[in-house]
Amino acid sequence: MKRVVFVIRNARLWLFSALLIFCLPSVAGTEESESLVVQAVAAARTHSKANQAGIIREFAELLALRNVASNHGDMRRNAEFILGMLRRRGVESRLLEAPGSPPVVFGELNRGAAYTVLIYAHYDGQPVQRELWASDPWQPVLRAGRLEDHAATVDLASLPVEIPGEWRLYARSAGDDKAPIIGVLSAIDALAAADIPVSVNLKFFFDGEEEAGSPHLADMIRRHANLLQADFWLFCDGPVHQSRRQLVSFGVRGITAADVTVYGPTSQLHSGHYGNWAPNPIMMLVHLLASMRAPDGVILVDGFADAVAEPGAEALAAIAAAPPVDGLLRKDLALGWTEGNGQRLERLIMNPAINVRGIRAGGVGETARNAIVDQATVSLGFRLVPDLTPEKVQALVDAHIRKQGYTIVREPPDSQTLGRHEKVALVEWREYGYPAVWMDMNDHRARAMSRILLQARDGELVRMPTMGGSLPLHVIRQGLDVPIVMLPMANHDNNQHSPNENLRIQNLWDAIEVYAAVLAGLDAELGR
Amino acid sequence: MKRVVFVIRNARLWLFSALLIFCLPSVAGTEESESLVVQAVAAARTHSKANQAGIIREFAELLALRNVASNHGDMRRNAEFILGMLRRRGVESRLLEAPGSPPVVFGELNRGAAYTVLIYAHYDGQPVQRELWASDPWQPVLRAGRLEDHAATVDLASLPVEIPGEWRLYARSAGDDKAPIIGVLSAIDALAAADIPVSVNLKFFFDGEEEAGSPHLADMIRRHANLLQADFWLFCDGPVHQSRRQLVSFGVRGITAADVTVYGPTSQLHSGHYGNWAPNPIMMLVHLLASMRAPDGVILVDGFADAVAEPGAEALAAIAAAPPVDGLLRKDLALGWTEGNGQRLERLIMNPAINVRGIRAGGVGETARNAIVDQATVSLGFRLVPDLTPEKVQALVDAHIRKQGYTIVREPPDSQTLGRHEKVALVEWREYGYPAVWMDMNDHRARAMSRILLQARDGELVRMPTMGGSLPLHVIRQGLDVPIVMLPMANHDNNQHSPNENLRIQNLWDAIEVYAAVLAGLDAELGR
Repeated sequence: MKRVVFVIRNARLWLFSALLIFCLPSVAGTEESESLVVQAVAAARTHSKANQAGIIREFAELLALRNVASNHGDMRRNAEFILGMLRRRGVESRLLEAPGSPPVVFGELNRGAAYTVLIYAHYDGQPVQRELWASDPWQPVLRAGRLEDHAATVDLASLPVEIPGEWRLYARSAGDDKAPIIGVLSAIDALAAADIPVSVNLKFFFDGEEEAGSPHLADMIRRHANLLQADFWLFCDGPVHQSRRQLVSFGVRGITAADVTVYGPTSQLHSGHYGNWAPNPIMMLVHLLASMRAPDGVILVDGFADAVAEPGAEALAAIAAAPPVDGLLRKDLALGWTEGNGQRLERLIMNPAINVRGIRAGGVGETARNAIVDQATVSLGFRLVPDLTPEKVQALVDAHIRKQGYTIVREPPDSQTLGRHEKVALVEWREYGYPAVWMDMNDHRARAMSRILLQARDGELVRMPTMGGSLPLHVIRQGLDVPIVMLPMANHDNNQHSPNENLRIQNLWDAIEVYAAVLAGLDAELGR
Repeated sequence: MKRVVFVIRNARLWLFSALLIFCLPSVAGTEESESLVVQAVAAARTHSKANQAGIIREFAELLALRNVASNHGDMRRNAEFILGMLRRRGVESRLLEAPGSPPVVFGELNRGAAYTVLIYAHYDGQPVQRELWASDPWQPVLRAGRLEDHAATVDLASLPVEIPGEWRLYARSAGDDKAPIIGVLSAIDALAAADIPVSVNLKFFFDGEEEAGSPHLADMIRRHANLLQADFWLFCDGPVHQSRRQLVSFGVRGITAADVTVYGPTSQLHSGHYGNWAPNPIMMLVHLLASMRAPDGVILVDGFADAVAEPGAEALAAIAAAPPVDGLLRKDLALGWTEGNGQRLERLIMNPAINVRGIRAGGVGETARNAIVDQATVSLGFRLVPDLTPEKVQALVDAHIRKQGYTIVREPPDSQTLGRHEKVALVEWREYGYPAVWMDMNDHRARAMSRILLQARDGELVRMPTMGGSLPLHVIRQGLDVPIVMLPMANHDNNQHSPNENLRIQNLWDAIEVYAAVLAGLDAELGR
């Protein structure tokens, strides 16, 4: 039992974690699944080692395709490419359509097995601010380490046989979320090469508008519900734990967003002639924001605190069992302090959050002028817990803004409207938004996944009651009533949603092993 | 005495004003000066009426020259053009130089008179944000009314003989501050045409970097001090009163400015994975700003309040005598409220002010991303009263920021610096800055100017202890120890420092009358 020894040897600081894992009923897995998992991991490792350059090059080809969801031409080029990737692996594949949506790439590998698992990833990426990137977001650049450490670039056309795990591939969607596509398809290659069968029926659902807020996902699921049935969905998106351990998670936070604009004079005014008299909209926005969110991050909007339940014992135990990473992260990110009054990250993401995404008014530096500007806009992102739906949050925040003396409008106001009210706020709730979904950590499918992953990763697994990020699980649950387990693979420091997004190469090699283990071992574990 | 009747008939609401004006010793002026002023105003009116198209076209040619002070090539083209304008009027002219500075256009019209008056204006303009303008800032556009009222444009090549006063000319510096140049030179034309002598020796000082904060003005004055001696300087910059009455003012607020940047994580972070834990620099900045300035505009930084003296009785009386304009302005600017708890504008600009000029972090609207940004920057402008020097303000604000838990740095900090301190603020005080200068309203030169202007404007004059804006009077006072009277001419709604700057044409016709009156009447009034 090498695995068990390993856990104990490495886990003196989190003995609690080890105890918890052993307290899971039948954590050790069956002989059969254990043997399959071990074989699959070995097969994946052998395959990856022999084909590193080929895998990276296929990935880079996929990353070279522009993939902002609003450009349907670009998205179709991505979809066709992925269709080819699936078909080369013998996966029966087609594009699913819904009006107004980029296509979903759907694939099916029917093994005549007892269980069917659907693998979700998305091939669209966040929009970019090109000027903030070190290189073109859609011309993948391999670096022999981190950009921050000034690592040299490596020519993708002449790759070495062995590509070190600490190298990184920089491109939009390298981490979020094209990586699982290459990961799972390479795992299928690895199992095929070793003659290890995929133990369950597989379905693939590669989404084309997750980063755009999935406005057509409900329609897509309704139209193709018969194809999308499965015993559970495996949601492959997001990063692994900051300790670099494999993460499995059983929930996501909900999300909604709004832009709020407040108004000063209808024309910009000379700050000397009118300063101290004409209302400064930037300061109006400042006081509004200060009224919503304390310096420690605690939300001051009435009704938020009431909607937050204390996490259950199992959730708290799982969090306590994860290796502590706050100190390391603070060092990596050069943070002199953190919000949340010293609580650890994993606990804080179980709370709702207001994130100020951007603020814009007038100019700074060379573009600053001695004027009182006419308006100021802030963009707010909300992360939600189960009892705090987007509808509820929108009502609470609107009520809060009104309580600060504002009349709310939904269209840019004209002068008459501005003059008629003391203060006017344009509050634009973004169309997208969905509630949080938290799954029972004791569900048998959740436990089957945990057991396989513990085996595949030699006991090094982090189980999280929820991820901090948001995925449209609610839409899927409404359409299909299927359980969903989150199995991310990207490095936590992948700059997801930010400039210089990247994948740490070791995370790809690890993912191929993890996917191979899951595909090979699931039938035996689910059947227990 | 038509003038006196007029004042009384129109001034029931400000009887106090009328009484005050009559209480000025010898307000009525001498027979001689009164006759000269009346003749000069009439001559100016006749000249303007006969030459409207020509005056506007010469002005438009001057406005067509790009004039951001940092572009020395552009500035020299302006200077050469103005040199030509002066020389055509028989003014002996040259360029004054100082290293690093755009030239000053200097002119001299020696009448062998007892008194010498120097007329100051500046030919540089504020930088522009082109996309916010309705037309190119350096391609003057004449409109038959206000842009806001969708007034039609009028071809400058085929102007009518009579150009209505409510038409407006749109261009950078149309109001601030090329207008006085065309105004005073047209007044000289008008007096010449009517054979009325300019009664004093005139000097002209047309500055090329006022909007850049006059960094070389002190050196310029030092180098050319002998040329710049005068009995007083007439500072022709800024707008007239919002009631559209002629304004004369005896002070300016001081100025300084800073950019403040605060820091979150060194890389942008996914707001889901790190929201509630990683400090959000926008919220840090929000709380810092909220700590500096109350919603009513009152400055909360320690030491500001102590430096503010209550205005004297004469200043308060002059303010009380000005026609009230707050209601009209609120309507024009669609303001539902004003800062300052109901005090009138003219009183509030005697206080120091913090104006938030701009704020910038992340994106809003389509460019918003679900990320915690790495930094947020605000640009602060300060308007100062006499006891609050730039040095003092900088020390008080730095101390305030430190009191909020920040370590202040003066260069963008590296990761080590950021990690070593709880909170770091990059505080960049802009190079420019000067203290306020307030002149004694009872100085005999101040009173001479008031008497002429009262005569020229039929008793409709607003006298202000200080303008809200800032001019580098301190630098001039240090170099020359000369009294300075502010005689602005632009309309208050000229969008000075803002997009779509413009001059209301009536203000130009009025200015030509005012300048003609001053040039013709000053010798007699100063000699009393």
